[in-house]
Amino acid sequence: MDIGIIGSGRVAQTLATKLLELGHRVTISSRDTSRAKDLGDWGTIPSAEAFAAGQRELGRDAAAGSFADAAAAGEVVINATSGGHALEALEAAGAANLAGKILVDVANPLDFSQGTPPTLLFCNTDSLAERIQAAFPDARVVKSLNTVNAQIMTDPRQLTEPTAMFVSGNDQEAKDWVHRELLERWFGWEQVLDLGDITAARGQEMWMPLWLRLMGAAGTAAFNLRIVAST
Amino acid sequence: MDIGIIGSGRVAQTLATKLLELGHRVTISSRDTSRAKDLGDWGTIPSAEAFAAGQRELGRDAAAGSFADAAAAGEVVINATSGGHALEALEAAGAANLAGKILVDVANPLDFSQGTPPTLLFCNTDSLAERIQAAFPDARVVKSLNTVNAQIMTDPRQLTEPTAMFVSGNDQEAKDWVHRELLERWFGWEQVLDLGDITAARGQEMWMPLWLRLMGAAGTAAFNLRIVAST
Repeated sequence: MDIGIIGSGRVAQTLATKLLELGHRVTISSRDTSRAKDLGDWGTIPSAEAFAAGQRELGRDAAAGSFADAAAAGEVVINATSGGHALEALEAAGAANLAGKILVDVANPLDFSQGTPPTLLFCNTDSLAERIQAAFPDARVVKSLNTVNAQIMTDPRQLTEPTAMFVSGNDQEAKDWVHRELLERWFGWEQVLDLGDITAARGQEMWMPLWLRLMGAAGTAAFNLRIVAST
Repeated sequence: MDIGIIGSGRVAQTLATKLLELGHRVTISSRDTSRAKDLGDWGTIPSAEAFAAGQRELGRDAAAGSFADAAAAGEVVINATSGGHALEALEAAGAANLAGKILVDVANPLDFSQGTPPTLLFCNTDSLAERIQAAFPDARVVKSLNTVNAQIMTDPRQLTEPTAMFVSGNDQEAKDWVHRELLERWFGWEQVLDLGDITAARGQEMWMPLWLRLMGAAGTAAFNLRIVAST
């Protein structure tokens, strides 16, 4: 399939690498595709162009382009921006390029302006996924994958037990595709839970403050939650 | 030990029952100890006085009193109010009665005023536990147990696998007591994680919106999360 990824940061490149390994065609995107990405404390990563060129050397079908290029190329589009820039990037991607398509929102609206740990730019009665769905009513927004680190998103089986991944959205068919195809078949998720309509994204995004503290307590970002019920 | 419980609702009565079974002396408390509690959709439960009388019939050392009675009686105090009324109830309990004591905050600041699912009264840059610690600087506030249903709080082993419970607070000795004694030894928790200072309560309380959606998806409140890491 053709997958368009909005963004070219660490999450975008990790998702793209996995999707390319699986044989899909992937376009990652950036405001400036030739600029290496400075992730602050997390180092630097290659530009979108350098990433795509490196993947093509491996025989994979990778491209780098503008946000509009990625959205136009994708049969499915993934928002992998840093959440604070998502709406701006999606505006540049263009409503017409997103119309009718599944738009998987994996971003968290983190606010680092007051230092670390970050807070959320908005929450509780609002969420990034809801804002995206409201701004792009013809896109089929599904919130998912934002509750884990990029490495876990695409390789949940590196954890010692099956763990939980969530989907929410207003379009059941779009959610079911993300659930069955992207999450279960492509990435290997085993405990996928449908939380309901897109307002459930509030809960998915509000997991982030607890996740950040758990990362501190565990000393690693390679963890996730598993849901356990009574017999 | 003498345990004072601020509140007499479902959570307060469940905690009290378990603590009484374990042989402790427990005072639960209410603004009006003779009034049965109307929990709306969740039915009604006995008044604080009727609860205590019923427990005494079973040979247990239960009392019902004012918020100040409970705080004065307890060597350890548990805030089991509905979160929106916690500060008011603790004011009535009295700062002098709380000074130097471990105060376990198990409440969530849920706002049902806009219907269900509830939102939080405040979050993200604030939390109920922080507000309590700020209002009662001489109390040793530990946030814990708010992330699960009352039945799971006191009986985590009804779940099919060990699951996670969190503690946060500014007083390490107080946190360690809650961790080792209340959670592990008394209630049987097996995966207790120290999240750091009391600001970590933001994450613990912000779990609630996801918990509420998971309850809907699972069709039960008898569940919890387990943290799974990589090898």
